[in-house]
Amino acid sequence: MDAPQEPIRDIAHLGHVELLTPRPEQSLWYFRDLLGMEVAHREGQSVYLRGWGDYAASTLKLTEAKHAGVGHIAWRAISPQAMERRAAAIERTGLGIGWSNGDFGHGKCYRFRDPDGHLMEVYYEEQKYEPPENLRSALRNQPQKFTGRGVGVRRSDHLALLCRDVAGNRAFVEQTLGCQLREQVRFDNGTKEIGSWLSTTAMHHEIAYVVDRKGLSGRLHHFSLWVDNRDDVLRAADLFTENGIFIEAGPSKHNNSQAFYLYSYEPGGNRIEVYTAGFFVFAPDFQPIVWDEKTRGGGVYWGAALPESFMNYATPDLPETSAQAGGNLPVIDPR
Amino acid sequence: MDAPQEPIRDIAHLGHVELLTPRPEQSLWYFRDLLGMEVAHREGQSVYLRGWGDYAASTLKLTEAKHAGVGHIAWRAISPQAMERRAAAIERTGLGIGWSNGDFGHGKCYRFRDPDGHLMEVYYEEQKYEPPENLRSALRNQPQKFTGRGVGVRRSDHLALLCRDVAGNRAFVEQTLGCQLREQVRFDNGTKEIGSWLSTTAMHHEIAYVVDRKGLSGRLHHFSLWVDNRDDVLRAADLFTENGIFIEAGPSKHNNSQAFYLYSYEPGGNRIEVYTAGFFVFAPDFQPIVWDEKTRGGGVYWGAALPESFMNYATPDLPETSAQAGGNLPVIDPR
Amino acid sequence: MDAPQEPIRDIAHLGHVELLTPRPEQSLWYFRDLLGMEVAHREGQSVYLRGWGDYAASTLKLTEAKHAGVGHIAWRAISPQAMERRAAAIERTGLGIGWSNGDFGHGKCYRFRDPDGHLMEVYYEEQKYEPPENLRSALRNQPQKFTGRGVGVRRSDHLALLCRDVAGNRAFVEQTLGCQLREQVRFDNGTKEIGSWLSTTAMHHEIAYVVDRKGLSGRLHHFSLWVDNRDDVLRAADLFTENGIFIEAGPSKHNNSQAFYLYSYEPGGNRIEVYTAGFFVFAPDFQPIVWDEKTRGGGVYWGAALPESFMNYATPDLPETSAQAGGNLPVIDPR
Amino acid sequence: MDAPQEPIRDIAHLGHVELLTPRPEQSLWYFRDLLGMEVAHREGQSVYLRGWGDYAASTLKLTEAKHAGVGHIAWRAISPQAMERRAAAIERTGLGIGWSNGDFGHGKCYRFRDPDGHLMEVYYEEQKYEPPENLRSALRNQPQKFTGRGVGVRRSDHLALLCRDVAGNRAFVEQTLGCQLREQVRFDNGTKEIGSWLSTTAMHHEIAYVVDRKGLSGRLHHFSLWVDNRDDVLRAADLFTENGIFIEAGPSKHNNSQAFYLYSYEPGGNRIEVYTAGFFVFAPDFQPIVWDEKTRGGGVYWGAALPESFMNYATPDLPETSAQAGGNLPVIDPR
Repeated sequence: MDAPQEPIRDIAHLGHVELLTPRPEQSLWYFRDLLGMEVAHREGQSVYLRGWGDYAASTLKLTEAKHAGVGHIAWRAISPQAMERRAAAIERTGLGIGWSNGDFGHGKCYRFRDPDGHLMEVYYEEQKYEPPENLRSALRNQPQKFTGRGVGVRRSDHLALLCRDVAGNRAFVEQTLGCQLREQVRFDNGTKEIGSWLSTTAMHHEIAYVVDRKGLSGRLHHFSLWVDNRDDVLRAADLFTENGIFIEAGPSKHNNSQAFYLYSYEPGGNRIEVYTAGFFVFAPDFQPIVWDEKTRGGGVYWGAALPESFMNYATPDLPETSAQAGGNLPVIDPR
Repeated sequence: MDAPQEPIRDIAHLGHVELLTPRPEQSLWYFRDLLGMEVAHREGQSVYLRGWGDYAASTLKLTEAKHAGVGHIAWRAISPQAMERRAAAIERTGLGIGWSNGDFGHGKCYRFRDPDGHLMEVYYEEQKYEPPENLRSALRNQPQKFTGRGVGVRRSDHLALLCRDVAGNRAFVEQTLGCQLREQVRFDNGTKEIGSWLSTTAMHHEIAYVVDRKGLSGRLHHFSLWVDNRDDVLRAADLFTENGIFIEAGPSKHNNSQAFYLYSYEPGGNRIEVYTAGFFVFAPDFQPIVWDEKTRGGGVYWGAALPESFMNYATPDLPETSAQAGGNLPVIDPR
Repeated sequence: MDAPQEPIRDIAHLGHVELLTPRPEQSLWYFRDLLGMEVAHREGQSVYLRGWGDYAASTLKLTEAKHAGVGHIAWRAISPQAMERRAAAIERTGLGIGWSNGDFGHGKCYRFRDPDGHLMEVYYEEQKYEPPENLRSALRNQPQKFTGRGVGVRRSDHLALLCRDVAGNRAFVEQTLGCQLREQVRFDNGTKEIGSWLSTTAMHHEIAYVVDRKGLSGRLHHFSLWVDNRDDVLRAADLFTENGIFIEAGPSKHNNSQAFYLYSYEPGGNRIEVYTAGFFVFAPDFQPIVWDEKTRGGGVYWGAALPESFMNYATPDLPETSAQAGGNLPVIDPR
Repeated sequence: MDAPQEPIRDIAHLGHVELLTPRPEQSLWYFRDLLGMEVAHREGQSVYLRGWGDYAASTLKLTEAKHAGVGHIAWRAISPQAMERRAAAIERTGLGIGWSNGDFGHGKCYRFRDPDGHLMEVYYEEQKYEPPENLRSALRNQPQKFTGRGVGVRRSDHLALLCRDVAGNRAFVEQTLGCQLREQVRFDNGTKEIGSWLSTTAMHHEIAYVVDRKGLSGRLHHFSLWVDNRDDVLRAADLFTENGIFIEAGPSKHNNSQAFYLYSYEPGGNRIEVYTAGFFVFAPDFQPIVWDEKTRGGGVYWGAALPESFMNYATPDLPETSAQAGGNLPVIDPR
């Protein structure tokens, strides 16, 4: 049993994410032809994608839906026992849904919602990628050949969610998943938690919760894909401009995380970040960084301040009034 | 108690390394003026150095000694309890030395030797870096100002040790420290373990064991420092050439780890790698990659094959006959 | 005599530029310690600087003056005869000043003003850089050792001038110096020339004229220094932020020239660009690109639109009313 | 008339090159799918290619032939008069062939051979590239959309020829074309000219002559394509390795030219360089750099010494004995 003062280390990493799109063909073009991802599988209304450096069979599931947004978010446990421990911990919170038989690429999983309603799951068994002959790498430790198509994103990295109550959702993933807090934005003399960035690995963050200014729930701020070099981010800027993809911010450097980034909207409407660098956290006693109104500045280390849309736009892009009408949860989960 | 089938996750990361040098002034010039590290502290015959992005007070201790080589290697535990557990596990192997009161930058530690005689320690308490005014960063999540001097290495990354028995030393750090095996070179139909690369974090490797062709023990193959961009590795090549530093190999890309590297000899004789990229390992069931005579090739993905000296030279650079004379352990530890 | 339809090819390149600063010590710190330039010579109120890759003894003269701005702009002829031809052509315009005996680093020159009053000169004899022992490069075709200090700008590249009448000044350098027009911004259905970019070499531009919104004359918009890699521009952004230097725009990519840029203000007030890439022009019949209100957009290919200050601020930073009071020419030339 | 001491400035730049290949389909795959060039035109046994940043309709003609090698080399004059002047100067040497009506992409030209027999031409009229709708760039000063396919070479850059008599061929292009000597390798106390690098623009070199160790004539050492960033050279190394293309040398940095390079063999057998950086020459009195046995070293600034094949292999790859049999000129020109 874990001693109370020791960290929970049951989650290995953010495993995969499902994005919803009302324009599946155009979204697929964006992820495959511009970002350079590969299609690993198709099933029903979904296409399963992967970066050339992903070891799992698929890390991004793209599903046709009425509205854009995030379908579900999957965390991989470090062992079957760890999965069971996490499921039990979640069940105690009353937010559990139950066991599922899995999906393409992974085995059984325990499904649940975070307090804001985002659908999540914990799983352990995962299918490794077995490339077809034409995608076999010359290097035996690479899961797939680097194809040189488009941006060439290496792997799925992290995501940021909007929510009504940052503190509540942040505490939930800390306590049930063992996510470690890395950075926070707190306004009003620290009393109002505006955003929190957390991780279960050495990567700066795997998940962020940021307050939803519209008061909606279950929404996605952005999903992020990793490239190895800052030049690849600049390459993405060229390709997006040449192909009519809206660039919202960057290429620039975040203050929070120190990462080099570019935000665009994929044709289905979801905000997608091409991302690299940033600092790693190895120290078990890392003290979370807290930013306030003054220190946060425009959210950037250098480069233009983040635009207003960055604070306001999210998917699904629903009117504010829908918050009063009972929330938007049914829209988020297409099944 | 850990269930047998679950991984040990008690070590947070490789904490710091002590290098020995017979030419302390010139070695300091190399690390400070060319690589761009900062001096955090001086004590006795030692200078304590740090990369601008290291969160610890110091990650590289440089100590004057008769011969070059590695002084000691320190692993940081995730908690005081984890430190105790590791100390107990090591003690059971008979290779434990005992508790020490610590050193500049960290608290008490448990000292031991690996089977090949390299001096190691496990500690938990660590002093965070508090920059003087002139080295305070504009960014509150950076431990230190980026100074723009020389190569500008960000942080200490990993090291590679030579040893007589790779399998034995590899198994020792797996079983006592919970290091995860990432890649191996095995010759003679897999019967002869030539080298093994292991890690306790998501980084590809923190420690490597490679067979010592001279049959000596306790030697260092190389110590490695991280830069954020491949351009920084190329920058190092320019600076080394302009300053008469011997470049042994690279800039090039490893097959093992896929990292981009440059090997040079610091003036004291130790082989130092400037290093970036490489793949991360998050999967708890990552299957170690095994290379053989054929697949290994010249040890590179592209770029020139690694030269003979890379296979033969290590520090201390002692004659082969010293192996028969009882080993070189006394040389390694200067105290 | 030149046949009318053949281009004048008498100017080899923009030779050197003199910048004025009311804060000489701080400006020197910026160019030497942050940008990494070397001091080649000091004389009177001037310091003569150079990038590590400049073949000339000095390409930037920094002179103490009451106001920031540009002192003079020097063009190098391809031969003594070419210098004479250009002097004769300029003399015919009535804007000539006369022959001067030269300055540190170059021989006699013919001085003149462009129609807007900026002081210029044409010269041929130039002193090559002879590095002191400690700055001698390991590579015999490099004029100086790469020191790895700060940004490490390679060489002086180009400058942009504000003026009252873009068309008149543009035509003047075309006709007297043989500058080739590369790109233009024209508003009001092409009737109003807002800015023109010209060059005498394969580089995209060496000089630009942009309309002075305040109606002043003789002012400098920016002076630009070349780095070899986009990573060096990003490095500059880090160093400027860490050292309290105001970044006005970038890192980003221009639409005009396609170059990757970063604009900052040196402590004396002059706007300085760190610059790389951009396209080369080799074709003798290159058709100048014309942008209008719509196609110009924010002046960027990607990245944030250029801020208002970019349109309004220049050095010397004088009040608009000084235009009525007879111009600011005496301020520009400190002698 | 040009004064004797003034440089000839009649050639604008190296215009285009024709490569011969015995494996046209595989060569096309290499240039189009791996290097990312576009097919602009097809005619007879030739495919006309272009880099995305080439302003001309085509800069590389790929022609099926029995042996690999260079078909012809075309220089663009700065004006029709300059073309006539160069034709007259060449005719006086007795190496002229005569006027031709041109080819796809350019107007009439004067054809000749250099003393070693390489077929050359001078032309003025050139067809600018008019992209089809799907290749139109978002940026009006870019000739073509950046497609993000493969390496993404921007434009054709230079070539290196082998010859029996370096001094004679070097003097020929200096005197008839006005090429400026940039660097030389001279052995045996300067008496034996081993290689010379020359240019008509600010680029370091457009043509090189290197001694043919086999004593053959008319052969090609390599053809070189420009990329904007060193990361693109590293990208090429990845793509070549993944696609079974032989990498002969690099990625590394030349001492001569300071450029960053990668040499591979395209499937037809020609050595192709992916190339960037290097220094520009603007000074009209630039003193050519001379290297000897000792200073040349392995031909590199850093990185592995150039391999033996680099000194010996060229196209066509004919046996040494063919030199005695009367040379290989008929092989070079397929028409």
